[in-house]
Amino acid sequence: MKAKIHVTLKNGVLDVQGKAVAAGLAGLGFGGIGDVRVGRYVEVELAASSPAAAEKTAKEMCEKLLANTVIENYRIEIVE
Amino acid sequence: MKAKIHVTLKNGVLDVQGKAVAAGLAGLGFGGIGDVRVGRYVEVELAASSPAAAEKTAKEMCEKLLANTVIENYRIEIVE
Repeated sequence: MKAKIHVTLKNGVLDVQGKAVAAGLAGLGFGGIGDVRVGRYVEVELAASSPAAAEKTAKEMCEKLLANTVIENYRIEIVE
Repeated sequence: MKAKIHVTLKNGVLDVQGKAVAAGLAGLGFGGIGDVRVGRYVEVELAASSPAAAEKTAKEMCEKLLANTVIENYRIEIVE
């Protein structure tokens, strides 16, 4: 099974990388750019007996390693 | 409109960050971990007259700044 995990900064946390990308895009001549947020996208192949079990494992992975839950949110999607 | 952009390494390109995450997860006691791939996830708010126009702009952004198309693929999703 594969877990597709999005890790994004929580609202209200300054996204420095996003600001840099927005400035870079403006510098290249792109107009009408609003907020830019940059996060991580992680795909993990894992052995699990069911999608529910896979989601539980992926949640643990996020809590322990993949996300800094003080400032980041994560979203998990399981595909077979 | 918002463009949700996933930038991932092409298949066949060594994903060093993914290998590090896989080793980290194994070190934490997670078993049955297969391939791990790490990519970027970028959300861009942009002014566009239509979803098609937004997608065209987002594609240009990827080609010019957001992705290194030699080694990376990108995927764009437009939401209103």
